[in-house]
Amino acid sequence: MKLSQIAQKYGGKLIGEDREITGLKSVKSAGEGDLTFLADKKLLPQLENSKASAVLVSEDYGLNIPQVVVKNPQTVFYSLLEEFYPFSHPTGVSPKASVSPDAEIGKEVYIGDFAVIEEGVKIGDGVKIYPGCYIGKNTVIGNGSVIYPNVVIYGNTEIGKNVIIHSGSVIAGDGFGYYKEEGKHKKIPHIGKVVIQDSVEIGANTTIDRAVVDETVIKAGTKIDNLVMVAHNCEIGENTILVSQVGIAGSSKIGKNVILAGQVGVADHITIGDNVVVTAKSGVGKDLEPNKVYGSGLQAIEWSKWKKVMFYLYKLPEIIKKLKKT
Amino acid sequence: MKLSQIAQKYGGKLIGEDREITGLKSVKSAGEGDLTFLADKKLLPQLENSKASAVLVSEDYGLNIPQVVVKNPQTVFYSLLEEFYPFSHPTGVSPKASVSPDAEIGKEVYIGDFAVIEEGVKIGDGVKIYPGCYIGKNTVIGNGSVIYPNVVIYGNTEIGKNVIIHSGSVIAGDGFGYYKEEGKHKKIPHIGKVVIQDSVEIGANTTIDRAVVDETVIKAGTKIDNLVMVAHNCEIGENTILVSQVGIAGSSKIGKNVILAGQVGVADHITIGDNVVVTAKSGVGKDLEPNKVYGSGLQAIEWSKWKKVMFYLYKLPEIIKKLKKT
Amino acid sequence: MKLSQIAQKYGGKLIGEDREITGLKSVKSAGEGDLTFLADKKLLPQLENSKASAVLVSEDYGLNIPQVVVKNPQTVFYSLLEEFYPFSHPTGVSPKASVSPDAEIGKEVYIGDFAVIEEGVKIGDGVKIYPGCYIGKNTVIGNGSVIYPNVVIYGNTEIGKNVIIHSGSVIAGDGFGYYKEEGKHKKIPHIGKVVIQDSVEIGANTTIDRAVVDETVIKAGTKIDNLVMVAHNCEIGENTILVSQVGIAGSSKIGKNVILAGQVGVADHITIGDNVVVTAKSGVGKDLEPNKVYGSGLQAIEWSKWKKVMFYLYKLPEIIKKLKKT
Repeated sequence: MKLSQIAQKYGGKLIGEDREITGLKSVKSAGEGDLTFLADKKLLPQLENSKASAVLVSEDYGLNIPQVVVKNPQTVFYSLLEEFYPFSHPTGVSPKASVSPDAEIGKEVYIGDFAVIEEGVKIGDGVKIYPGCYIGKNTVIGNGSVIYPNVVIYGNTEIGKNVIIHSGSVIAGDGFGYYKEEGKHKKIPHIGKVVIQDSVEIGANTTIDRAVVDETVIKAGTKIDNLVMVAHNCEIGENTILVSQVGIAGSSKIGKNVILAGQVGVADHITIGDNVVVTAKSGVGKDLEPNKVYGSGLQAIEWSKWKKVMFYLYKLPEIIKKLKKT
Repeated sequence: MKLSQIAQKYGGKLIGEDREITGLKSVKSAGEGDLTFLADKKLLPQLENSKASAVLVSEDYGLNIPQVVVKNPQTVFYSLLEEFYPFSHPTGVSPKASVSPDAEIGKEVYIGDFAVIEEGVKIGDGVKIYPGCYIGKNTVIGNGSVIYPNVVIYGNTEIGKNVIIHSGSVIAGDGFGYYKEEGKHKKIPHIGKVVIQDSVEIGANTTIDRAVVDETVIKAGTKIDNLVMVAHNCEIGENTILVSQVGIAGSSKIGKNVILAGQVGVADHITIGDNVVVTAKSGVGKDLEPNKVYGSGLQAIEWSKWKKVMFYLYKLPEIIKKLKKT
Repeated sequence: MKLSQIAQKYGGKLIGEDREITGLKSVKSAGEGDLTFLADKKLLPQLENSKASAVLVSEDYGLNIPQVVVKNPQTVFYSLLEEFYPFSHPTGVSPKASVSPDAEIGKEVYIGDFAVIEEGVKIGDGVKIYPGCYIGKNTVIGNGSVIYPNVVIYGNTEIGKNVIIHSGSVIAGDGFGYYKEEGKHKKIPHIGKVVIQDSVEIGANTTIDRAVVDETVIKAGTKIDNLVMVAHNCEIGENTILVSQVGIAGSSKIGKNVILAGQVGVADHITIGDNVVVTAKSGVGKDLEPNKVYGSGLQAIEWSKWKKVMFYLYKLPEIIKKLKKT
């Protein structure tokens, strides 16, 4: 693709020589034939040592390599990635898979080696199920969804259209619920289900538990990172972001367009309003009002100082008591 | 099942018309033919809009739908779930599984497609091993245990009776142990084992590591949630609860009837006494006495306020130094 | 092996009777024929009840069982573990595996049942790939590496020599990256790769994500525990230790010989210098200078006291405001 074509396609302007672009790389690693992009004016110095053949920029920086000036260089770069490196999933049902004769399989489907499709499963058109996946009884997977290797989906689950689930994730395992009987924990049967709506993406080794009754629901467009825990009967709203290692306890309801940053924990039966941001490592033990940013995460400082801070922190009640007296 | 039958079975009293019950649902989602339950008097208003045909309650609330008054509505509801939605695992050894001729297989066993049973494995009566599981050499699995798809159990592991292990969990992988040799980390061989006693349940994608020597032990009746880490040589007492994303470092000893809430971390070589509760997100760096509740987790508040709190928290040592001077 | 042989081999001195050693155990569980070791003088009392036949010690403690005095008893014990319990992986390609005819397979390789090796994969000599693993297109695995059951390695990944990856880990899944387009999250294609250098060990159910462009790199000799998250485009230096449940967000650069203790979280685009230690549960939101110890983790105390501490902590800004006035 020529720089002039890129400029034209994205409503940009080419400054400098028109060149043929053969790859897309970061500023640091770009070489001959590569196009890169400048996300931020502050990164200009990095470009000096770059061997990139051209750069996407948001304004003319007077560089000595060709520049394509576009409104949002980063977004254009991502969009170009798709064009330069098109990815196509395989098609066809492997004779080494185990597909129940009572399953309904759509068109243009891929079912990889050693995948297991149990009875009553319905798999929509264009669905790609990679090797080693297990799809439990009566689970439904909507058109265009991609299930990467070794994912497990327990029975009676509803997966929408264009959902992506990465390797090792476990959908609809039993929720963690017991009641005490004669001093022992007796298991609460989990006969509810998990519903994953359209265009949700779920990272690797994440777990989303089945409801006791009713449903655990992940609404459309929500993106979940790796190693996240969503417990039984939760409801996660549309277009929400759950970053890696977030844990959400049972029956909590997270609004839409919410961002829970890495390692955030949410207690059970909590409601988090729409558009809330919770910063990394925070603990949510109370309902959170919409449209606000919340946090309780701490910042690592030198240990010798932190020890002193802790020393006084734990003494706060008595220090303040003394102060009140004087 | 009729309401009168339910009342009779659980020593309760039917108030209102006797009806045939066809399903069990939450207050919110119950419809025609469904029985629901009231966990708490505070939830009474929710019942007003409910379409449930009847409700389990702990006292007569004078409702306009039939009530079954029982001592503990929630427990009765869970018990009924088992009766209404009985679940039966499959039986039989799939010809697509790979079972060593040197393995001992009990009666009424299920071994699913693409499961691997290595030599010397002993599988008790009624054990269910779902597709894609790997059971390493000489591992023993007691009667009635259920191993869901894609679980890995390394060799020489002892699994008791009526144990449940959910998908993606890894039992008896090498512990994380190294010693320094010429500036590099040299692996400590882990030749110990993991012992999971009777009636333990382990959630999805949890990891329980093999001991260096001796054993990592999970004692009878303990319940472990998803994404939990139990390191080498730990001992977890009877009927203990480890909630999701808890991490326990090497050689720690947790008592019986303990509850470690979500995302709690426990350092290595720690002893936690019986009946201890540690609240969510706390860090345990010292031994904990039995029968007490401990915590160090923080609560998310509005970020603008939290920033100020942190500002003064980190300045505590100098603030207090100043105060002492005056 | 005789005690005298052990003493000779490790430059130690036998005090007491020469005995034949048949096993290695901890002080607590050692019995007839077992050798144990004393890691610390403080543990001497434990030896009184030990049934061990001999003990590795760092000095003559005048014990009534034979002692082998060596410089570092613990290290000698670990070294002996390898000799006493030699472990050999299987060899041979299972006819039940699915190996692409376009894959290159080295000598003395093991490929277990139901493993999938896609086209273009190169597997070095002595590599062991256990059952249920998935090795994506064009991935290269260096000599002597061991991949335990049910590991997933997406395509185009580079795995060095003598790497160990434990069960359930997912290498090179897509990074968690989106940009907003008309209020929805649009996926950023991840066309970069993951490079795992020589002698890295990765625990169970860990996830290491593929870079957007360029590479996510784990440098030689680094050891990663279970349930760790390394996000896209991170670089982890040589001989670094990432303890269980650590999470590192995108594009962060961790130096060499670093230790991140359990449940530490690192924000994105952070640089952590060489030889840094970050204590358990800390949050790293800023760059950390080399050769220092950092922390922000809290210690669980009795809940009734912790509640009071929190009460005053959250009031710090107003308390200090008041103090300033007086």
